[in-house]
Amino acid sequence: MKKNRCALLTSFLLCLFLPGILDAQSKTTHPLDPLRTEDYWAIYDVLQSSGHIDADTLFASVLLHEPPKEKVLAWKTGDPISREADVILLRKGATFEALVDIAGHKLESWKEVPGAQAPIIRGEFRELGEIIKKDPRVKEALAKRGITDLNTVECVPVPYGYFAIPEQEGHRLGIGGCSNLHGVYHGWGRAIEGLTIIVDYAEKKVVKIIDDGAVPVPDGPITYEEAPAIPRAGTTPLSISQPLGPAFQIKDGEVLWQNWHFRFRLDPRVGPIVNLVRFDDGTRLRSVMYEGAWSELYVPYMHPATGWATRVFLDAGEFYHGGTIKSLREGMDCPSNAVYFNGLANDDKGAPVLRPRQACLYERFTGDEAWRHGEGGEVWGRPSRTLVLRTAAVIGNYDYILDWRFEQDGSIRVVVGATGVIETMSVAAESAGAHAAAGGLEDYGHLVAKNTLGVNHDHFFCFRLDLDVDGQNNTFMAHRLVQKKLPPATHRKTVWVDEPFTAHTESDAMLDIHLEKPSMWMFINSSAKGPLGHPTGYEIMPGVTAASLLDPDDGPQKMGAFSAHQLWVTPYRPNEIYAAGLYPMAGKGNDGLAIWTKENRKIENTDIVAWYTMGFHHVPREEDWPVMPVMWHDFVIRPFDFFPQNPVLTLPQAP
Amino acid sequence: MKKNRCALLTSFLLCLFLPGILDAQSKTTHPLDPLRTEDYWAIYDVLQSSGHIDADTLFASVLLHEPPKEKVLAWKTGDPISREADVILLRKGATFEALVDIAGHKLESWKEVPGAQAPIIRGEFRELGEIIKKDPRVKEALAKRGITDLNTVECVPVPYGYFAIPEQEGHRLGIGGCSNLHGVYHGWGRAIEGLTIIVDYAEKKVVKIIDDGAVPVPDGPITYEEAPAIPRAGTTPLSISQPLGPAFQIKDGEVLWQNWHFRFRLDPRVGPIVNLVRFDDGTRLRSVMYEGAWSELYVPYMHPATGWATRVFLDAGEFYHGGTIKSLREGMDCPSNAVYFNGLANDDKGAPVLRPRQACLYERFTGDEAWRHGEGGEVWGRPSRTLVLRTAAVIGNYDYILDWRFEQDGSIRVVVGATGVIETMSVAAESAGAHAAAGGLEDYGHLVAKNTLGVNHDHFFCFRLDLDVDGQNNTFMAHRLVQKKLPPATHRKTVWVDEPFTAHTESDAMLDIHLEKPSMWMFINSSAKGPLGHPTGYEIMPGVTAASLLDPDDGPQKMGAFSAHQLWVTPYRPNEIYAAGLYPMAGKGNDGLAIWTKENRKIENTDIVAWYTMGFHHVPREEDWPVMPVMWHDFVIRPFDFFPQNPVLTLPQAP
Repeated sequence: MKKNRCALLTSFLLCLFLPGILDAQSKTTHPLDPLRTEDYWAIYDVLQSSGHIDADTLFASVLLHEPPKEKVLAWKTGDPISREADVILLRKGATFEALVDIAGHKLESWKEVPGAQAPIIRGEFRELGEIIKKDPRVKEALAKRGITDLNTVECVPVPYGYFAIPEQEGHRLGIGGCSNLHGVYHGWGRAIEGLTIIVDYAEKKVVKIIDDGAVPVPDGPITYEEAPAIPRAGTTPLSISQPLGPAFQIKDGEVLWQNWHFRFRLDPRVGPIVNLVRFDDGTRLRSVMYEGAWSELYVPYMHPATGWATRVFLDAGEFYHGGTIKSLREGMDCPSNAVYFNGLANDDKGAPVLRPRQACLYERFTGDEAWRHGEGGEVWGRPSRTLVLRTAAVIGNYDYILDWRFEQDGSIRVVVGATGVIETMSVAAESAGAHAAAGGLEDYGHLVAKNTLGVNHDHFFCFRLDLDVDGQNNTFMAHRLVQKKLPPATHRKTVWVDEPFTAHTESDAMLDIHLEKPSMWMFINSSAKGPLGHPTGYEIMPGVTAASLLDPDDGPQKMGAFSAHQLWVTPYRPNEIYAAGLYPMAGKGNDGLAIWTKENRKIENTDIVAWYTMGFHHVPREEDWPVMPVMWHDFVIRPFDFFPQNPVLTLPQAP
Repeated sequence: MKKNRCALLTSFLLCLFLPGILDAQSKTTHPLDPLRTEDYWAIYDVLQSSGHIDADTLFASVLLHEPPKEKVLAWKTGDPISREADVILLRKGATFEALVDIAGHKLESWKEVPGAQAPIIRGEFRELGEIIKKDPRVKEALAKRGITDLNTVECVPVPYGYFAIPEQEGHRLGIGGCSNLHGVYHGWGRAIEGLTIIVDYAEKKVVKIIDDGAVPVPDGPITYEEAPAIPRAGTTPLSISQPLGPAFQIKDGEVLWQNWHFRFRLDPRVGPIVNLVRFDDGTRLRSVMYEGAWSELYVPYMHPATGWATRVFLDAGEFYHGGTIKSLREGMDCPSNAVYFNGLANDDKGAPVLRPRQACLYERFTGDEAWRHGEGGEVWGRPSRTLVLRTAAVIGNYDYILDWRFEQDGSIRVVVGATGVIETMSVAAESAGAHAAAGGLEDYGHLVAKNTLGVNHDHFFCFRLDLDVDGQNNTFMAHRLVQKKLPPATHRKTVWVDEPFTAHTESDAMLDIHLEKPSMWMFINSSAKGPLGHPTGYEIMPGVTAASLLDPDDGPQKMGAFSAHQLWVTPYRPNEIYAAGLYPMAGKGNDGLAIWTKENRKIENTDIVAWYTMGFHHVPREEDWPVMPVMWHDFVIRPFDFFPQNPVLTLPQAP
């Protein structure tokens, strides 16, 4: 009866959690809830009282340590909630790992991790930036370029990556350069090119200056927000209206929308983590995915110049201090019917920082059909709507919008929008001229403005998708579509047939997309058969994507090795979360997906995890400057024989 | 002054064409306007008075014959409008072609086309369906199956395709079967399998019956619209609001929206044809595309059984009689702020038939950013909106939604949604069992319901895109991204570089998508340089697509040969419109893209046309039954150095 009341228009408002939505995130009600303010301080207290914190100790990372999956699945409301945290600390270049039992106020483990580099800490950028500016060699190099007022200069060293050079061993190196902000309000596009500075973050010093000679600093317009807004003639107001409020509910941190149930938390490292994604098929709540999230973002640049060849970023694992995702802007990032969620991340002293609007949740008015058919001169069908969980990461110059879109038909569409400011190299050339005449200038990038080369690069977004289709024991099958010759009597010579292939071990499931060898990627539960005898399943349908073109033996590519295949499947292991490993900063490629799978473990009829990489090559164009229109990419996780019929067949007539 | 007034909110309503929008299509104001009622009758009168029409003559096709491009481009308001029509007539199996000068009331040419088959005429389905039911051999075969009440039986012969068999020469053959409607309201999914009937449409007789033995007619639910609507708990109303009306204008048939200008007409064969697509960059109106439209749709099925191997449909070219696109449903196919357009198509006597809501035009509330960037703890950006021109084709069982989406950033996103009812084969199997145990049942399809095999098939949508970037003389360049080894001193081993390649002739531009060999498809105008010296250009960015797996030497594949490559580029020829040729019904593959390009014509620095094929392989799943959730695919045509900076930089703050 209680459930039915909610469906009645008159009692809608009683059933909605409008003011309660944000609060729903503010107390711990589930083992997968994010760390709360009191958790951060409990962690701090445990570490402080254990004597491990001194004035030089920096908190690089404080993340929820998820309880073992079987414990989470067995957990019921009212059961005690165990809380643990993984902490990475940095002290004078040394990296320490702690596991803290929050509820028990206990340090469970503490160890130094030799050779590992903690992710870069925001304060390190600032501190080393100032040190660079005080270095006489830098001052001299800038003076040579006519820059003597250092107030307008900004210098930023970024992680060096791993390039197998002796200088790196045992050091925490950064490499970077300076920009001149004079006359503008941000430094992107104002690089003082030709001056490369290598720093040691731990020793807080400039290690080396490389001066390849002055290049003019571009002076074209880069003022994205101050550009005059030009009204589009005839524009009339267009808005979304949901007068009775959102159609989803949040109960103890669980989102309920139509037939979908899921949880999410905002993780400082990988952003939104969706959990316990289940679909109510009318008879029972069925598991689709235990967990889905970004695992790593890999952005290698393609210029061989000093200071550029080293720009090979693992955007999540290197840069997440303070939180990979950032605030959304109301009405711009999300429509007026969105509900926002705050988030917490640690600062370098371990204190929580409350950050507004880290995610939004809203129903998207699609204007599209869920299904339709014209028959007998009439049109039949149903309009659709979608639930969107949106966040936006900002990693320096780039912004990545990330949507988890829950569709009524049981599909989950994952969408990434790349926008922000491209990285540019200052060059002498004012125009492109003929490609050859410009000395191969545009081999490595594309001139986007006078003296401004948008440098070519890739984006690879690796998603860790712990699908649990109707339970944990799943099998991955590639349905290969293969040409078959027909006997001569058929007249027709060929058809294609569906040849299902069961992946027994990890090497069977390292898959690349080839148009001439298509295959469907299916995650099935062979002990949960539907009424027709098919195993129930979910399919990952790739969208437009790309494969890395770098030599697998190249240092950077060893770190981003997950980009070598579009799909990998591994057996579930609680500590295999990050596709480029736990410590990608200056990592040597000895952790991560490509390493774990070397064992070629069994993946049949067991708890398995899919890793899908969405990628694109980016040759910037003039339209990408001074800020880039959003470029969208997506992929879909859709039911395949999970439902015995079209799940949107029974939608009501109104959207 | 007039233009500025429109921008003022107070005079908005004066500038809008609300009641006039439909009227805007009802009188001829431009050489590319669709045929009007009076045109159809003028055509009829010319043919009638020429003595070419008798009681047996059927009008298979009446289409606007576009004036030569140079005449259209030279035409100015007030100039006389020449009007011609291409007419295909069918008389007792013979095909005739006429070119009619409408304004001059003159028959310009008339000829019989030996060997060509006019597209199937709707009346032929009905007439032959009745003839089949009267055939004693059919009655006997049905009686053997226990079916004696022929009132509930529906028989439909479809075009045979070309399979190089002697019986086909000089005949207009159809092949088909019957369904039993008893107990349901449509025949999809109720095939009386194992009974194949070959007919001669021209001789109006059954040629042959093939009885492979009875198969049970499935009796599971197929009632898509009568399925009980199950309310989704907690659903609240969600709607779009544009209280001051649409933000586009239509002036003499030209659509004006923000910076975009374009025309469209609704063609009975290929549906919406967009023309003269131009972008106002603030200083001038610049050409992007002269014409864009579907060219052909190719849907080969993949079952070798009698009556199935022949199901190889050229959905536009074979089945367009009466119009490929059909009516849209208000509020379901298009949102409440949409404006609808009626359309005309000829019946078999040549008379125009007025059909409602053949297209809709609306602004899509995206809820998405046009661009965004987080900087200095704040978020900058602009919300976006999109203009959508939507139609829906219904070809028997399948529905194809087609969107031309005009984006504010100068991109055109072309979207196809496939939905409707899949074609199924009745089979003895009630469940799938193990794949092998079921005797390879699912090699060729997938059981979607008891006794119901969803047969595997492909969909290929070929788009003819006559891009004219800043004018007619364009060049196609493939920017190939190629790995480059770096010298040892660089530490890093590899980058990729952009190697632009100019296509000189057609064979240079027959391109396939390979992830390991990426390339960017650029259409440039080398005499229209931007401020940086780059030629202005537009890029075709493929979406998810597929390549045909059939043997190129296979009869069906010769007709759908355009599916062998994802991109082709040809020199503009006014009569090269249909990728599978003018007469695909029973065509032998001696017309169309693969034939024209054998000449390997020059395509450099001339007027060129791009042909992009979007495709997918379809293994049906249980969720696709009894009606299929929409499956969306898209591709993008986007500016590349067409604008000297981000064209959405100057958007106003409000969407």
